[in-house]
Amino acid sequence: MRVLGIDPGTVKMGVGIVETSGNSYKLIHYDVLKMSSSETLCSRLGKIFNCIKQKISEYKVDAVSIEDIFTAINARSALTLGQGRGAAITAAVEMGIPVFEYAPREIKKSVSCYGAAGKEQVSQMVGLLVGVRDIKSFDATDAIAVSICHLNTVPLRNMVSRV
Amino acid sequence: MRVLGIDPGTVKMGVGIVETSGNSYKLIHYDVLKMSSSETLCSRLGKIFNCIKQKISEYKVDAVSIEDIFTAINARSALTLGQGRGAAITAAVEMGIPVFEYAPREIKKSVSCYGAAGKEQVSQMVGLLVGVRDIKSFDATDAIAVSICHLNTVPLRNMVSRV
Repeated sequence: MRVLGIDPGTVKMGVGIVETSGNSYKLIHYDVLKMSSSETLCSRLGKIFNCIKQKISEYKVDAVSIEDIFTAINARSALTLGQGRGAAITAAVEMGIPVFEYAPREIKKSVSCYGAAGKEQVSQMVGLLVGVRDIKSFDATDAIAVSICHLNTVPLRNMVSRV
Repeated sequence: MRVLGIDPGTVKMGVGIVETSGNSYKLIHYDVLKMSSSETLCSRLGKIFNCIKQKISEYKVDAVSIEDIFTAINARSALTLGQGRGAAITAAVEMGIPVFEYAPREIKKSVSCYGAAGKEQVSQMVGLLVGVRDIKSFDATDAIAVSICHLNTVPLRNMVSRV
């Protein structure tokens, strides 16, 4: 199974594509879509939508995994983040790919065994798990962590669906 | 000019299409897209995206006008609303149609001359302005008001762009 993880944002959006290879993870691709805060909302949403569609198509992704929101965020930031998530999720829906959402704590726990891990810790653990240590961007490592989080839940989901 | 107004929401979304006809407004179409709150987020965003694309295409819309958020809303509601707006705006961007955003006060003022007008007042004024008095849904009349709000600003925009 090949999963596209998304760390959503309307200025920077991280994407990471990971698949399971035996008992380990194989990093297929990662990228950070950078937008300017001076760009119009339409331009940014259009870029997010097209980026996700293109990655799904190019890398033949089976599922999309996306980070859910922080609860402590303010309403204005939540709206902005929501619009970006809406554009990204719509792209997956358009491509007929299932979308799974995970809370930040679940994601951090799935890569570092600690729900309150910092970005640096998450980044280091992601590097170890996929065997690539020179990923400079936290947006990218966060996205890869979102992808790994979904891959970790797949065996459990399969067990539950068999019961 | 023909404008598609959107009153965004992820359970009910109002749409209203209005054009100027001489010195008056002509109501071309209105609708309320109803979704179930038990539906998945993906299903709802997909419906919003496809609905807006279909209306733009069927009614040959020149511009999309959408209500901006209430500032007093909480973060969770803002995120949900943001996702719906993201899907709707992305649909317009995909169709190459410009999108304009208006604050609730501007919209209310443009149809009722009063920025704090209630839904009932907005509904009655919209009915008078488009000459159709039996529109039962506030979601629809709100969407028609968003459309009229943009139509009212077009002459001003044209004047500014000529200066």
